[in-house]
Amino acid sequence: MTDITLARPAPAPGITEADTVLTGDRPTGPLHLGHYAGSLANRLRLQRLCRQFVLIADLQALTDNAADPGRVSRNVMEVALDHLAIGIDPARSHIALQSAMPELAELAMLYLNLVTVARLERNPTVRDEIRQRGFARDLPAGFLCYPVSQAADITAVAATLVPVGADQAPMLEQTVEVVRAVNRLAGDAVLPEPRILLSATPRLPGLDGQGKMGKSAGNAIDLRADADTVRAAIRRMYTDPGHVRAEDPGRVEGNVVFAYLDAFDPDPAGVAALKQRYRAGGLGDMAVKRRLEEVLNALLAPIRTRRAEFARAPDEVRAILRRGTEAARAEAARTLDAVRAAFGLVRP
Amino acid sequence: MTDITLARPAPAPGITEADTVLTGDRPTGPLHLGHYAGSLANRLRLQRLCRQFVLIADLQALTDNAADPGRVSRNVMEVALDHLAIGIDPARSHIALQSAMPELAELAMLYLNLVTVARLERNPTVRDEIRQRGFARDLPAGFLCYPVSQAADITAVAATLVPVGADQAPMLEQTVEVVRAVNRLAGDAVLPEPRILLSATPRLPGLDGQGKMGKSAGNAIDLRADADTVRAAIRRMYTDPGHVRAEDPGRVEGNVVFAYLDAFDPDPAGVAALKQRYRAGGLGDMAVKRRLEEVLNALLAPIRTRRAEFARAPDEVRAILRRGTEAARAEAARTLDAVRAAFGLVRP
Repeated sequence: MTDITLARPAPAPGITEADTVLTGDRPTGPLHLGHYAGSLANRLRLQRLCRQFVLIADLQALTDNAADPGRVSRNVMEVALDHLAIGIDPARSHIALQSAMPELAELAMLYLNLVTVARLERNPTVRDEIRQRGFARDLPAGFLCYPVSQAADITAVAATLVPVGADQAPMLEQTVEVVRAVNRLAGDAVLPEPRILLSATPRLPGLDGQGKMGKSAGNAIDLRADADTVRAAIRRMYTDPGHVRAEDPGRVEGNVVFAYLDAFDPDPAGVAALKQRYRAGGLGDMAVKRRLEEVLNALLAPIRTRRAEFARAPDEVRAILRRGTEAARAEAARTLDAVRAAFGLVRP
Repeated sequence: MTDITLARPAPAPGITEADTVLTGDRPTGPLHLGHYAGSLANRLRLQRLCRQFVLIADLQALTDNAADPGRVSRNVMEVALDHLAIGIDPARSHIALQSAMPELAELAMLYLNLVTVARLERNPTVRDEIRQRGFARDLPAGFLCYPVSQAADITAVAATLVPVGADQAPMLEQTVEVVRAVNRLAGDAVLPEPRILLSATPRLPGLDGQGKMGKSAGNAIDLRADADTVRAAIRRMYTDPGHVRAEDPGRVEGNVVFAYLDAFDPDPAGVAALKQRYRAGGLGDMAVKRRLEEVLNALLAPIRTRRAEFARAPDEVRAILRRGTEAARAEAARTLDAVRAAFGLVRP
């Protein structure tokens, strides 16, 4: 299987075969080009370097979707399909379903004893997200506690590397604190301290140039989008409102079409040349958009083909998810044994 | 096996064979006469009326003993022995170990999505206990969340009746709210709403007359205490400091010896006569204490014998705990299936 990766992959310093990566997504909608640029392409690279677990975090998705759980369950298989479609190889990456791993709940419940409420409330990521979601006094307890649940996910598979954006760095610090508390309790380094692998890719803007591409913002191109949908999306893509006629000079900064070319065009010299012509005047939006359409369809065409193949074999997809979950549970059982022992828990 | 019960059992209105009781203890020390009067005697009665689960709540004990987990693990078998010693019959009451039931952690993690942080902070029982334990900014998240964990315990075995003291009533309200939220989500009454069974027994005072008998207050008579220990404890028991000579009139109110006679003497008419003579003057403390010694040793002698028998067969005790835990897990698996379905969770 040919791996499909980003035009310009970030370097991966110090990653060895001995590393274990934990990464994943909340299944609240189909994955889109923003995910691809921000994390999925990276997963394709990482699976060649070391062991990787891709967690479909349905329980975490429930922490702010408890009122609409169907949104979560509907998207579990879609997210699995998205991963298989882009070339995540189950022989090298274990795709695991969070809610099918009881060990995660057991670990999280134990870890809650090692973290104070004040520390959770101080977590900058949680504070930002509480604000974004408009939670005030009606903050679900599960949402406040989700950094502890993430610590369970990460330690369960003994992950040593966690790829995240800079905004998620405080979450990993919380995990490191939990790891240290467990090791202190155990009197031994029973859990590895995970390192952060900061994403080098800037966030992909939405089609409208307003903020980042988002599942629910209606400004995304899904990985499963067909050619017509891609064309229509590119047609309405935000460029430079001051660039009315082709012969006018245009702005490249803040121009969504160029942001996407930067992220996905495998020919950076060609993109540089286009930018120069656009700035100087004499290059119409339509010409740049046609290039982007070529680039995106070249990226998405094999993804669509693979997705269609897997979609015709749902039993196989379920089996892949089952095997990935079993592999993750085998690791998690070892972690849980160590953590239970640290807490002095006995089995009758 | 002869059941040993309280001198004056409380009535049990409306309890039928269709009921399921959930009760239990935090294994942080040996059980004592205060537990016996407050809850254990009641368990002996309840096991004759309906199905009963006795949960050894080691995970809950960790929520405020994470710094000294050995205190919890050391006491798991002791608490099991205490129950068998008083006559809890494994054929009628399932003794289950909380930490050996992963379903409880899974339920608790799901329920955390149905309860707000504000609601937990408002829980009067939690507020009182936070104050008692001197938690301030260092409140462990697990402690704040423990009413949700209790909701998991109660619903796991589909308990319809939960015997608690009045101070614990807010905990049960929280469980009822969780049950209603799950049933709303499921669109059906998949979980029964538990009823509270308020304890009719006033709390037994400590030997020193200061507050209630407590595990760590040093003012308790443990159920496993031998006759010498009981005699010594009764000797230093608080009576009426104004009652110096036998011929002086004495006070019965606040007199610990009479409080214990009220709780444990099977001959209430005899106690009433003693009280009258004590008030009038002419009855010395030693005489009343001798009667209490008789009463307590009559209660504790068969408990000691049974305890010694079970202590000689630790494998049998472990097997009882294992079978009780399995029975509870079988119920819990059914509850978990229903709750997972309500949240739309799927197994791959």
